[in-house]
Amino acid sequence: MVRVGIIGASGYGGGELIRLLKAHPGVELVGFSSRKHEGKPLSAAWPQLWDEGRFGTLEEVLEQAEVIFLALPNGLAMELAPKALEEGKRVIDLSGDFRLPPEVYESWYGIPHKSPELYREAVYGLPELHRGELGGARLVANPGCYVTATTLALAPLAAEGALRGAFAVGLSGVSGAGREGEGTFFAEVNENLKPYKVGGVHRHIPEMERNLGRLLAQGRPVRTHGPIGEVRLSFVPHLVPMTRGILVTVEAVVEGNWDQKALDELYRDFYAQEPFVRITDALPETKGTYASNRVDVKPLYEARTGRVMVFAALDNLVKGMAGQAVQNLNLMLGLPEETALPKEGLWP
Amino acid sequence: MVRVGIIGASGYGGGELIRLLKAHPGVELVGFSSRKHEGKPLSAAWPQLWDEGRFGTLEEVLEQAEVIFLALPNGLAMELAPKALEEGKRVIDLSGDFRLPPEVYESWYGIPHKSPELYREAVYGLPELHRGELGGARLVANPGCYVTATTLALAPLAAEGALRGAFAVGLSGVSGAGREGEGTFFAEVNENLKPYKVGGVHRHIPEMERNLGRLLAQGRPVRTHGPIGEVRLSFVPHLVPMTRGILVTVEAVVEGNWDQKALDELYRDFYAQEPFVRITDALPETKGTYASNRVDVKPLYEARTGRVMVFAALDNLVKGMAGQAVQNLNLMLGLPEETALPKEGLWP
Amino acid sequence: MVRVGIIGASGYGGGELIRLLKAHPGVELVGFSSRKHEGKPLSAAWPQLWDEGRFGTLEEVLEQAEVIFLALPNGLAMELAPKALEEGKRVIDLSGDFRLPPEVYESWYGIPHKSPELYREAVYGLPELHRGELGGARLVANPGCYVTATTLALAPLAAEGALRGAFAVGLSGVSGAGREGEGTFFAEVNENLKPYKVGGVHRHIPEMERNLGRLLAQGRPVRTHGPIGEVRLSFVPHLVPMTRGILVTVEAVVEGNWDQKALDELYRDFYAQEPFVRITDALPETKGTYASNRVDVKPLYEARTGRVMVFAALDNLVKGMAGQAVQNLNLMLGLPEETALPKEGLWP
Amino acid sequence: MVRVGIIGASGYGGGELIRLLKAHPGVELVGFSSRKHEGKPLSAAWPQLWDEGRFGTLEEVLEQAEVIFLALPNGLAMELAPKALEEGKRVIDLSGDFRLPPEVYESWYGIPHKSPELYREAVYGLPELHRGELGGARLVANPGCYVTATTLALAPLAAEGALRGAFAVGLSGVSGAGREGEGTFFAEVNENLKPYKVGGVHRHIPEMERNLGRLLAQGRPVRTHGPIGEVRLSFVPHLVPMTRGILVTVEAVVEGNWDQKALDELYRDFYAQEPFVRITDALPETKGTYASNRVDVKPLYEARTGRVMVFAALDNLVKGMAGQAVQNLNLMLGLPEETALPKEGLWP
Repeated sequence: MVRVGIIGASGYGGGELIRLLKAHPGVELVGFSSRKHEGKPLSAAWPQLWDEGRFGTLEEVLEQAEVIFLALPNGLAMELAPKALEEGKRVIDLSGDFRLPPEVYESWYGIPHKSPELYREAVYGLPELHRGELGGARLVANPGCYVTATTLALAPLAAEGALRGAFAVGLSGVSGAGREGEGTFFAEVNENLKPYKVGGVHRHIPEMERNLGRLLAQGRPVRTHGPIGEVRLSFVPHLVPMTRGILVTVEAVVEGNWDQKALDELYRDFYAQEPFVRITDALPETKGTYASNRVDVKPLYEARTGRVMVFAALDNLVKGMAGQAVQNLNLMLGLPEETALPKEGLWP
Repeated sequence: MVRVGIIGASGYGGGELIRLLKAHPGVELVGFSSRKHEGKPLSAAWPQLWDEGRFGTLEEVLEQAEVIFLALPNGLAMELAPKALEEGKRVIDLSGDFRLPPEVYESWYGIPHKSPELYREAVYGLPELHRGELGGARLVANPGCYVTATTLALAPLAAEGALRGAFAVGLSGVSGAGREGEGTFFAEVNENLKPYKVGGVHRHIPEMERNLGRLLAQGRPVRTHGPIGEVRLSFVPHLVPMTRGILVTVEAVVEGNWDQKALDELYRDFYAQEPFVRITDALPETKGTYASNRVDVKPLYEARTGRVMVFAALDNLVKGMAGQAVQNLNLMLGLPEETALPKEGLWP
Repeated sequence: MVRVGIIGASGYGGGELIRLLKAHPGVELVGFSSRKHEGKPLSAAWPQLWDEGRFGTLEEVLEQAEVIFLALPNGLAMELAPKALEEGKRVIDLSGDFRLPPEVYESWYGIPHKSPELYREAVYGLPELHRGELGGARLVANPGCYVTATTLALAPLAAEGALRGAFAVGLSGVSGAGREGEGTFFAEVNENLKPYKVGGVHRHIPEMERNLGRLLAQGRPVRTHGPIGEVRLSFVPHLVPMTRGILVTVEAVVEGNWDQKALDELYRDFYAQEPFVRITDALPETKGTYASNRVDVKPLYEARTGRVMVFAALDNLVKGMAGQAVQNLNLMLGLPEETALPKEGLWP
Repeated sequence: MVRVGIIGASGYGGGELIRLLKAHPGVELVGFSSRKHEGKPLSAAWPQLWDEGRFGTLEEVLEQAEVIFLALPNGLAMELAPKALEEGKRVIDLSGDFRLPPEVYESWYGIPHKSPELYREAVYGLPELHRGELGGARLVANPGCYVTATTLALAPLAAEGALRGAFAVGLSGVSGAGREGEGTFFAEVNENLKPYKVGGVHRHIPEMERNLGRLLAQGRPVRTHGPIGEVRLSFVPHLVPMTRGILVTVEAVVEGNWDQKALDELYRDFYAQEPFVRITDALPETKGTYASNRVDVKPLYEARTGRVMVFAALDNLVKGMAGQAVQNLNLMLGLPEETALPKEGLWP
């Protein structure tokens, strides 16, 4: 039994981690902390969890756990990760702090990076592409929902050398904005649909472009710190009146001649061994992945216009967040990758 | 490994059973049938389940399984159960066919009963009250969502001899009406709230009254076919614009003097050993039980008026349907009662 | 054309008032103020309103308007109303400040009353009961959604002298909590249902009891400051995952012998002349009143238990708030009562 | 007062027409028919409408009305319109029957056209482009929601000669599928998001391409039966868990050099005189147009990629259906175009 802990356990990522880890046979959840709820029972933050234990302090978690999940707002992991690593702990960071080179991070996030040296060591935690690097990782940068969906939607085309760019429409449930996210009051989100952060300003754009650029330059498997080719994409996110789930609908700008058969073969081959990626016959729908760690992907060739499109759906709090972090944990610990991670969703 | 099968696997009860049983370590799901989807792959009915296996025939399931779940509309289990029992199978029926004495059934359901003799053998599958009878049961009548919530909300008062009647307001998500249930189109349910089947005509009323009447007459534990006292309740169901979850808000008509402390003690004692019933400090909310097999219950004494109220919330497809059926299976097989049943919900 | 203004024009009540008054042929909307948006264009607060004009100051509205709507949190109208009245303006207050005698107000709202003398002058603005008092009113206390629905649901029984008490279950959409109301984030309200403020503490209880008590003591029509009989009710509010709409499901504690026919006659007679109250054959549903100023009411006799129930549905922002205020305005000005108020709802 | 009637009055288009026409000062609604509800009171189909009058027969409507709205499934208007026109009536058809040349219609709709000769006479009822033709029209083909939004989103670029094609992502509320539309059960639509009819097969594609092609060839104003240039677009519709509202997010394939300023000027100029098109500063959101006849449009230049995007939002049942039909009626009758049509939406 490996001792694990969670720092930032009262946000949605933290709550999902508690739920998944409590049912994980290979780990013991030795502590979870929340500045806001320190010392209080679990029920102070979480009506859905049977009340056992209390929120501890950050220090307690740092001391007691061997592997630490950081589920914090951007800018905090870069302060905590060095301390944890110094004390011999391993870290899975759910924020954006170690996903980008410090100079890129600073320009997109507007936050000075306090641990630039650690970036060189961080492994990018997208198991489908970086599985080989994760076994020995001390610090994992766990990617988020939009990036996971968009990257996996286009990875086969990028690895094939065919991808030049993309117009990606992101459609997200409201929980993607975090607990008490700005502008997410029910009365104004319900029966409403709106784009936001359009125009090339969303922080996840450089991460998507780098992920796909790595595949273009390296083929598969990719190394986090290997060469990166150029992919330029537009990302157009929208807020959808639902709690969980994201769908990306992507128009891929590609070279070469494609048709439905070639796309199907490329995608089925590329993901043939993946436990959590399913190439669907039907069009993906978010509910099909609800509460599961699965991604449903469908490439489509539109003969009428010659366009190549891809659809990808996942649960933003599981495969797009906490489930992916547990998948990374399993790989770091050498456990079966699927441990404690449902492949099947909740319906209806 | 016990071989289990599902007849009626393309309705919501059937889908939840497949999801839960696939993850159950003590059973092997050897077959599932659906008249509509016979011979088709799982994905024909279920976008959320990784596609393994196909819908078989009713006969195949009857032949291959040792324990059979019947997840069918009312009126069909009474035809199938005798055949299954004759061949030495055990049956868990999710319909209303064996929950009431045949003459009561006929008057409320308007369907002639075809296996009246089997009713005497059926055990009523509410584990919190009938646990002792379930180990040896060949035929279990699994109660539904409204009845489970209302019965558990009032059981402590009934067992104490204090309950005389109740005014129970039921509030249900739409999945309670079944897949493609009448009058459940999104555009007319969303942003809408309505009472339905009021005036003492809802079929679950006699079941609630009998459950509580048994406790009144027998105390606890109760026997399915033991004496029954008189409790008379009004049940006022409403359709709420959500998919899962029911809440019952009950005004209990009671004898004796009560206050909050006495109610709390009564309820906490009564459910002290129950793995799936939680007496909450906060008011129950349906989302707290989402996708779990838990019931959250809260008794309340209103000093201003002297009224006693109880609130109870559960997930209608889990504790109110398929999860309860698996709980019954575990008890029938002598397995740990919590096997494959989450106590913790999904949030948000 | 009467010059009207709105103070507090960036809350939901204010927004609905702007929408209704812009289309009102008998008034000119000369100003609207919001502390938060002072000087900004309308679009700063309201995406749905074609951008004409800007939020002015409170002083400008006080100066320019003849009739002023106060759409403010509790506790502010008691400061502003005296100033407005001194300058010869007429006031319609949407808050709770003038709905209760100061001493009752203070004990339920926990706010010292700053204009107790004005209460004696205020007319209670429920047109169906107080129509006769409204023509000459200088200060109108406009009741809110739960009170309007519950009062109108029980008024016929109270006026008949038959009402003794009630168990009223309130079911409200989220907009009833106001703009950015506490605990109303989409991700935690959607797919959720919960009771709140139960146990006899909701502030609207004394108002309901007084409304019904007046009818019991005075018959109909009632005078705001006339005698009040005793009605004792439990009010059990719930938050429902929808934006607009409330439904109250009420068990009436009554004297005398009732049946469905007697109830139907009583209710149809009582409301025969009302332009906005409809006694329905079918059960009321909230969507049927969406965006209209209508209340749908249905009394029900349950023969099996002898209980009398009433269902009432309305749009909490129209008949439960801004529409009722415009109805009061029309009566104050001697205009046709239905001016600018839709009797028909939006569907779906 | 012009006598108007509705054939097909129990679908959503018919219901909205009744609601809007009842409040229209220039017309008298003399009849409305529904095969399903013939002879029944209005309340049989519509809980939101105060019950006055009954559903009549098709023949009665044909006889009594001067202007007839046909709100029927595709394929029926082509049978009824000739009869109505022969009897000297004017017709506004909400179906697709007269929007496309018969041969194009037949290939996309798979229905043989029974009145091909009438197509030459039909005026395409998009007032923003065809206002000049509508005054004298006997037969108007009223376009639907996706087409109206996509056409108005791209019209300025097309009229400028700059448009070559587009990748249009359509996002629609569920009421767009009609009353009791297939696959629209609440439990499976709620908390779900899915693409459908992708791959260049949606019937509205040729209509969008023709509308934009007309502008490319004719500039503005356009004539329904004038020359048509070539625009080739992909249309990728999605079903969103909300009742009303559509948003189109379009990537325009354009010639020439554009920037935000040039786009803003082009769009503001093009729509400067339009009563129902608003070029917004903020990004359009569907709720901003709820229950109004407005379209909110926003062009966007993404400097990082050089892409031109446009966002357009409207209420699919008003500007995308019944409101547009009333706007056409007003133009046909020479009434003020805005009569009975709200420019302001419902919020929240």
